[in-house]
Amino acid sequence: MAGLGARSVLVTGANRGIGLELVRQLLSKPDSPQWLFACSREPDGERGQELRNLVSKHPNLVIVKLDATSPTSIKDAAVCVENHLKGSGLNLLINNAGVFKDVALDAVDVEDMISGYKINVIGPLLVSQAFLPLLRRAAQGSSQKGLSCNRAAIINISSTLGSIELVPPSYMNPAVPYRCSKAALNMLTQCQSVEFKDFGILCTIVHPGWVKTEMGGQEADLTVDESVRGILDVLSKLSDEHNGAFISWKGNKMPW
Amino acid sequence: MAGLGARSVLVTGANRGIGLELVRQLLSKPDSPQWLFACSREPDGERGQELRNLVSKHPNLVIVKLDATSPTSIKDAAVCVENHLKGSGLNLLINNAGVFKDVALDAVDVEDMISGYKINVIGPLLVSQAFLPLLRRAAQGSSQKGLSCNRAAIINISSTLGSIELVPPSYMNPAVPYRCSKAALNMLTQCQSVEFKDFGILCTIVHPGWVKTEMGGQEADLTVDESVRGILDVLSKLSDEHNGAFISWKGNKMPW
Repeated sequence: MAGLGARSVLVTGANRGIGLELVRQLLSKPDSPQWLFACSREPDGERGQELRNLVSKHPNLVIVKLDATSPTSIKDAAVCVENHLKGSGLNLLINNAGVFKDVALDAVDVEDMISGYKINVIGPLLVSQAFLPLLRRAAQGSSQKGLSCNRAAIINISSTLGSIELVPPSYMNPAVPYRCSKAALNMLTQCQSVEFKDFGILCTIVHPGWVKTEMGGQEADLTVDESVRGILDVLSKLSDEHNGAFISWKGNKMPW
Repeated sequence: MAGLGARSVLVTGANRGIGLELVRQLLSKPDSPQWLFACSREPDGERGQELRNLVSKHPNLVIVKLDATSPTSIKDAAVCVENHLKGSGLNLLINNAGVFKDVALDAVDVEDMISGYKINVIGPLLVSQAFLPLLRRAAQGSSQKGLSCNRAAIINISSTLGSIELVPPSYMNPAVPYRCSKAALNMLTQCQSVEFKDFGILCTIVHPGWVKTEMGGQEADLTVDESVRGILDVLSKLSDEHNGAFISWKGNKMPW
């Protein structure tokens, strides 16, 4: 396995859970990225403490304030990242920030639905728009042919709960706002995969498994360490055939 | 073919296009429903004229004011329908109201995305919540076994553009907000099919084809007459095996 060799990586929702573990494991690799941008809505607050501890030990880690529900905040973050990159592009954008609410059809309301859609769908859409010029620059500047995370890629973190086909066996967690938003995110990624292919940008959906995090709860199947090891291994192997695909942390293709 | 024999039917977005044609063809059947509720956001305006013309000739047609983006308006509509039904249930709810915007990833904005989601997803969700007691009453009061539109059903009108699998061959119309909302509507319907099956309510997604309407444009494949004839034929044949399925106006199963 060649390993993930993206020179610049950006992770949203990086202050906890899967996002924070992605940052930790990327920093601990022997060929750690030259620039690792860890985005968080409130990097200065209590919840940003772990990221701030990491920054003091890793000069290649940059904490970036990014609220995925605010177009202005996203644009400011893109300017900040561009300034750090000094003319280079961004190889890998991981849209990981998300919100989960487990509510069934009788209780779900407008606010649950809108909030899930804003954070889980419109966020990744706007973040991808804002970072597209940097991703295109990375793709153009690469000597590699074909699509890969080392060249230029958007990875959207979805969920098995976003698989329409898998609703019947997984409905012990109705999570209606989450499911609807993740199905829409899968659709968004498929649209991105068609529009951005000719720019040399890979677009893939990744299901991280059911992970013991604040979002996944403690009865989940996987530790965050196991999930993120799997995800990083999968990312290192993605190529043209995975453009627009929905892939699990184990590398299996998931049904829509 | 037995024909669609639902005694009470409600159609949203009934003042034009596919919704209006559904009303026209249901009224012209020899076994027209006893109650046909035609919902429109502005039944008193210029756009409600055609429905008002029909009411003068058809005493079984009731025009109901319903704005699918307003929880209050939806609740008021449910009370109005319940009063008309005088203790009977509602057999068939057709969530047809929708909005279309053909915009690609570079130009789509928050407002496009939210507006598409509110009308195409949250609308059908809230309308189904509000009419659920009347649908359950119809299912309980029916002598039929199994699921059917004659007993109790929610039909959500989606689109081939909501199929994630079919994005690559259909991306000549990017329509990102519409596609994301319709993929989410497909997910919502699948959730409804699981939750409402035990109540005796069928939940199915129907793709009406690409139809020459104000939404579909004049270069579309089908006349609204052809599409609606196909839809009504399909509805008359739906049974347990179609619960949670995505079916075209021709009766073919569509991929997610």
